[in-house]
Amino acid sequence: MFVTSPHHARRSTVRAALAGEGVDAILVTDLINVRYLTGFTGSNAALLLVAADDEEPDRAPGYTDQVTDDSDPHTRFCTDGRYTTQSEAEVPDLSRLIARPCDVALLRGAPAGSVGFEARSLTVAAHDVLQKVAAERNRPVSLRSTLDVVEVVRAVKDDTEIAALRRACAVADQALADMIGHDGIRPGRTERAIGLELDQRMRELGAEEPSFETIVAAGANSAIPHHRPTGAVLSTGDFVKLDFGATVDGYHSDMTRTYVLGEPQQWQREVYDLVHAAQAAGRAACVVGATGEAVDAASRDLIADAGYGPQFAHGLGHGVGLQIHEAPALARGSASIMAADMCVTVEPRIYLPGRGGVRIEDSGVVRPDGYHVLTRTSKDLGVL
Amino acid sequence: MFVTSPHHARRSTVRAALAGEGVDAILVTDLINVRYLTGFTGSNAALLLVAADDEEPDRAPGYTDQVTDDSDPHTRFCTDGRYTTQSEAEVPDLSRLIARPCDVALLRGAPAGSVGFEARSLTVAAHDVLQKVAAERNRPVSLRSTLDVVEVVRAVKDDTEIAALRRACAVADQALADMIGHDGIRPGRTERAIGLELDQRMRELGAEEPSFETIVAAGANSAIPHHRPTGAVLSTGDFVKLDFGATVDGYHSDMTRTYVLGEPQQWQREVYDLVHAAQAAGRAACVVGATGEAVDAASRDLIADAGYGPQFAHGLGHGVGLQIHEAPALARGSASIMAADMCVTVEPRIYLPGRGGVRIEDSGVVRPDGYHVLTRTSKDLGVL
Repeated sequence: MFVTSPHHARRSTVRAALAGEGVDAILVTDLINVRYLTGFTGSNAALLLVAADDEEPDRAPGYTDQVTDDSDPHTRFCTDGRYTTQSEAEVPDLSRLIARPCDVALLRGAPAGSVGFEARSLTVAAHDVLQKVAAERNRPVSLRSTLDVVEVVRAVKDDTEIAALRRACAVADQALADMIGHDGIRPGRTERAIGLELDQRMRELGAEEPSFETIVAAGANSAIPHHRPTGAVLSTGDFVKLDFGATVDGYHSDMTRTYVLGEPQQWQREVYDLVHAAQAAGRAACVVGATGEAVDAASRDLIADAGYGPQFAHGLGHGVGLQIHEAPALARGSASIMAADMCVTVEPRIYLPGRGGVRIEDSGVVRPDGYHVLTRTSKDLGVL
Repeated sequence: MFVTSPHHARRSTVRAALAGEGVDAILVTDLINVRYLTGFTGSNAALLLVAADDEEPDRAPGYTDQVTDDSDPHTRFCTDGRYTTQSEAEVPDLSRLIARPCDVALLRGAPAGSVGFEARSLTVAAHDVLQKVAAERNRPVSLRSTLDVVEVVRAVKDDTEIAALRRACAVADQALADMIGHDGIRPGRTERAIGLELDQRMRELGAEEPSFETIVAAGANSAIPHHRPTGAVLSTGDFVKLDFGATVDGYHSDMTRTYVLGEPQQWQREVYDLVHAAQAAGRAACVVGATGEAVDAASRDLIADAGYGPQFAHGLGHGVGLQIHEAPALARGSASIMAADMCVTVEPRIYLPGRGGVRIEDSGVVRPDGYHVLTRTSKDLGVL
């Protein structure tokens, strides 16, 4: 049976998009995009994808011939000598060029025509070098700036990716359940101790690493959007906000839960209930065809109508995948259209400086029948 | 008493270098360089340093006036609204502009003249935007490409930095000593379990995080330069190579030790002794005034003379500081001149594919009287 790898299918999708960009090939230098299109996880590599079916890239000296039946003649993969063994294991379906710098080596061997580069990741210094290389070639090649060609494809996840995101979310759910089950979030502990334990539990459950620097914010600190865990001690009556995630097979989960230590006060219940309702409204609005702006507004308006508009701050959510923040944006001014199999967070919040804040966040996937939550920890007001 | 912050002194050094670059100001967008020059550790900020003593940057709308007596009128710092509180704490000696994107906001308010940008970090897409902003200004400003202006200054460490590196090295030393003291590196354990424990011990000793993905490589895996810990089980008779470090206050330590599990075989002793001698030779050659190439050769030649030249692979060492790899390079072709207070690694190695490898690495500081090791764990052949 001939099975096409998910990476091969992704490369075909990107290649099909090149005509619309007006280029004959694209030089992929963003390492996240290289990983997405090949599976390679090292720190140095690049890729040349050629659009045309009838033109193969030149086989430059230095090429090895370790290709399988699934080889893809329209793709050239390059890494350096440190990663020969690793790339053979991770990228079995492509031949590999071992050279440095990778972008220069690939451009030297590119077929004549126009070659797109990724303007959001290529530096000015690297571009200067590529321009010289292009000028030195016998057969002319022109460099063209492109934006988000691979990122747009990446915004819609395939089954392999959704399965990885599901695992990443399950690790975060389980780690939090274990923390709470062992009474790990209690008055007297520091933010830092809780953060370290949560990170360690995620690693023991199979996370490669936390998705980002875990946020544990107690009391007034819970009103700070990006708070780093400190030696601050949790007290009875505090809000405690946990924003964290696990990375599994390179895919990131992202979840926020806010608890009350002891009996909630009336203002805490009110703020919590409002954010809870706004989060449900955001999820309900996250349907195929909606704009990022509309989804954001559905949640934001509910909070603004209650008089907390200025306390909403940043956008409602963001795409999540190989990066913790990626396309599409759920925010004011976002024209992104929700499509089936996009994975996004929904995370409304109210911050009351000096008092405390509530944020409730899920990661989930947009399906034809609505938004499916992947982070399954309860969002009812939890009293610890 | 008026005390100038180390950041203020660093900014003065960079400003003094601007004339040599032919620019009137420099836009610092590399976040590591921003941290070096201000202390700011968030994920979005930029800095404009103006060379001239008699010209202050414009005070554009949006500026706050939270400056102390130590304020620096030649520097403009910009971050976004998520980091208002954090930047007030981390950067008390500069006024701050809260705006997005930071580079655009700073260029709008730059004094007329030529403004350098950091070509190794600014992307082509960001540069295109800045070019438009420059063209829209009433008072002309021209953008100029610069390379490594701040990086060259950063290569020589001040006392604050050396103290941080010393702490980072001490954490790594202590974590390894504790591991060995608790018989944590023994046959029957997996590479992965050892790596996770070492990382956890470093965190408990005060590391913000490991300096990089910790390498634990047993048996034949020790011959792979960049090996990720796997489920491979350590066996009696194996080499086991540990390459790891701690990050403390943003500064990275980097150390490799190679042990033998049980009684060493003759070939293991020979290879180890040779690398050990080559490491001593590299340290001895790492003196003020030597080129990076000469230091590399002192160690490399000793290994090549013994017939293991091809097994030496990459360069002898690299600068270490706010980044795990930074200037200067100790490698073939490196014209960098060793200067007092540079911090570099010395890490010769021999890799024998299929059998095993030895690498011995210190982090240390170049002083007028020679190379001072900061990673103090014994380098005698350790038998576990």
